Amino acid sequence: MQSFELDKTDLSKLRKAIEGDDQELSSILAEYHASEIAILFDNIKAEDRQRIINLLEVEKASEVIAEMSEEAHPEELLIQLHPEKRTEIVEELDYDDATDIISQLEAHEQHEILEDLSKDDAESIRNLLSYHEETAGGLMNTQMIKVNINLTKKDAIDQIIQQSEEIEEFYTVFVVDDDNIFKGIVSLKDIIKAKGNVKIMDMVKPDAVYVNADTDQEEVAKLLSQYNLTSIPVVDGYLKLLGRVTFDDVIDVLEDENTEDILKISGVSEDEELAGNWVDAVKSRLPWLIINLGTAFLASAVVRYYEDTLAHLAILSAYMTIIAGMGGNAATQALAVTVRRISLYDLTDKQAYRAVLKEFTVGMINGAVTGAIVLAFAYFFDANLMLGFVIFLAMTGNLIIAGFTGAGIPLLLKRVGIDPAIASSIIITTFTDVFGFLLLLGLASKLLL
Amino acid sequence: MQSFELDKTDLSKLRKAIEGDDQELSSILAEYHASEIAILFDNIKAEDRQRIINLLEVEKASEVIAEMSEEAHPEELLIQLHPEKRTEIVEELDYDDATDIISQLEAHEQHEILEDLSKDDAESIRNLLSYHEETAGGLMNTQMIKVNINLTKKDAIDQIIQQSEEIEEFYTVFVVDDDNIFKGIVSLKDIIKAKGNVKIMDMVKPDAVYVNADTDQEEVAKLLSQYNLTSIPVVDGYLKLLGRVTFDDVIDVLEDENTEDILKISGVSEDEELAGNWVDAVKSRLPWLIINLGTAFLASAVVRYYEDTLAHLAILSAYMTIIAGMGGNAATQALAVTVRRISLYDLTDKQAYRAVLKEFTVGMINGAVTGAIVLAFAYFFDANLMLGFVIFLAMTGNLIIAGFTGAGIPLLLKRVGIDPAIASSIIITTFTDVFGFLLLLGLASKLLL
Repeated sequence: MQSFELDKTDLSKLRKAIEGDDQELSSILAEYHASEIAILFDNIKAEDRQRIINLLEVEKASEVIAEMSEEAHPEELLIQLHPEKRTEIVEELDYDDATDIISQLEAHEQHEILEDLSKDDAESIRNLLSYHEETAGGLMNTQMIKVNINLTKKDAIDQIIQQSEEIEEFYTVFVVDDDNIFKGIVSLKDIIKAKGNVKIMDMVKPDAVYVNADTDQEEVAKLLSQYNLTSIPVVDGYLKLLGRVTFDDVIDVLEDENTEDILKISGVSEDEELAGNWVDAVKSRLPWLIINLGTAFLASAVVRYYEDTLAHLAILSAYMTIIAGMGGNAATQALAVTVRRISLYDLTDKQAYRAVLKEFTVGMINGAVTGAIVLAFAYFFDANLMLGFVIFLAMTGNLIIAGFTGAGIPLLLKRVGIDPAIASSIIITTFTDVFGFLLLLGLASKLLL
Repeated sequence: MQSFELDKTDLSKLRKAIEGDDQELSSILAEYHASEIAILFDNIKAEDRQRIINLLEVEKASEVIAEMSEEAHPEELLIQLHPEKRTEIVEELDYDDATDIISQLEAHEQHEILEDLSKDDAESIRNLLSYHEETAGGLMNTQMIKVNINLTKKDAIDQIIQQSEEIEEFYTVFVVDDDNIFKGIVSLKDIIKAKGNVKIMDMVKPDAVYVNADTDQEEVAKLLSQYNLTSIPVVDGYLKLLGRVTFDDVIDVLEDENTEDILKISGVSEDEELAGNWVDAVKSRLPWLIINLGTAFLASAVVRYYEDTLAHLAILSAYMTIIAGMGGNAATQALAVTVRRISLYDLTDKQAYRAVLKEFTVGMINGAVTGAIVLAFAYFFDANLMLGFVIFLAMTGNLIIAGFTGAGIPLLLKRVGIDPAIASSIIITTFTDVFGFLLLLGLASKLLL
């Protein structure tokens, strides 16, 4: 009994054990929980993972594989195992975990694994593979505790005990009718507490939240989180009960969606693996940088247009960098707040309108304050009040544009059904660069030359 | 039985009901779940919230208040209620929810609420208020199902049924000895399945994960998510059982931490409320923009230093904006990937070193590719191969710096115990602005004039 993460001592102890013989390694492994061994797997060579999986008993080996991070590629480990061992492990896995892992493999590899399984298991996994990865169907587990609505308390408890041989953990008992139509939920606690041998029908909570198999995973996560559910039932178009999505899957979905949001608004492809190699990183980021280059040429065309102005007043270059930098950062601020707000809440049109209006106001005030600072600097340092005034106007105008686009563009994208996080800082800062230079250099050429 | 969120039809139906009389409103409210009414509360006036809470029966009213988003300020609603109603509601709330809400109030308001409660309730909440908000103690609920390790199956079930009168939902039964020392967990399922009248002692799983009251909430969330637990027991320094943190609290923590991360790397104060007004937004963002202004002056000082170079070759201004913009975006990419990776995983020194090396390589390649594009442009458009060459070198150098600082600075901060997300894009882009200008203008003044 201990509260731990895998710290450096554990890691080096385990690493050392890997150098020893199988017996020694086995006895050290026995001290660790499956999810700790899964963390170790992030830090060791593929051949050592192979060896450890072969040393572990099947149940623990399957837990380790289920707990491995996606980025450690459990599917590669699985496909390289001896077919017999592999089949044992896959049959031990929950269907949803098995499906997640197998779905990452090539079709012929999937086939190779599935043909060794029992007919039932293979069919269940094939069925799950047919749902889109990012829907309730793709997340759900078909193993669950399910009782008929017409059972009595005593028979229901017998059924639950029998079904729970197969199912490690459950928190909710689902209730169906004779046609497997979902009728509601009942907690084990309520069944036990019920006085006398009443029927499930009298205990079932019929107003349970459920989702369809094709419901988007973000929606599933929102519902589970909003109603504080440990699991949410998944039904088909006829309300037939197909499976359940559990809170631990939803925690993973939330982490994934958050990673996607933070990467996308920073101009990184959502598929980039955080611990991937440089080749993947270049592939994921170079396209965005080339888009950025295109937009940068646009901004630079504005500068080019005012080349004469700059040749006459080279000091403007020094202020250009300030206007552009401030605009970009103010836009990133508005963008981050807006994208996060859209992720967490469903905004009404009125709220969206107010959000844009608010960012407009914030941009104006922040622009005026920082613009005034630069005005004072230009007056005292460059002894040019008119230049300061031009800068003040350009800064205020640019920060208004920053707020307006930083909030407005993601909200507009959401409205037309496009992922708002794609309005990355790369796109938004184009606006602030272009308009910032237009304002500064345009005003300068009118008022200062 | 229905799968819903509060859509526009529901919202306008509820809004219309608010205009009607109390009886009409009550009957409409009865159709909605507490967490749906909590969402409605984001969209209506304070006085209407007040009225609805007063119309609801105490149990539902307390659920609504518990489910209200932090940003809708449930504490303000609570403090304005009639003291009698308020006391009823607070006594119905779980201790952890009550504590969260009350902690947002002024000391005299807290006192006002607590003095009306029963001695037991007031003491429990006062006790919880003493823990730091962002620790296991601050998150935990002291209400839980707890049995003595020496009980027999039958007595344990009786105890559980009795305790569950008070506790709506539970998933795990905690086991303690006579001194309330935590001894492990047992699931209700295992108790029921146990044959004969065995003792809890023979069923308890002693290797349960637990946390201390002062464990940071991020650590708690990691453990619960890693071990797929519905709840995690909280103990004091003597291993006495104090309470439990449940998965729904952890989901909220994850959402909060993710909001903080995304805001901080975008240069927004972590405390800014997403739906706050413009005054709060200005307060939260202006300080960062002023820091940014300071760093922008630094970059602009570099430009100023090369004023003569720019006066001779004004076209450099057009390329400056490209180099600076690309450097800033490449740095933001490296920063986002690194900050997110640190949030999700504990990196070893070797992994941290490799991450920086990877970003260095990525920067070099992306810099060379985009630099070559600009080189070609300068050659064909400005007919100046040497200028193109200078730009190529500056771009490559700047993107190397972008990768190096984007990954290196957050990792360094983490290493010395500072929140890595504070290495916001504002800080990182200073490096790329300053070094980008130094490289471009320095090389240009040496090679082109």
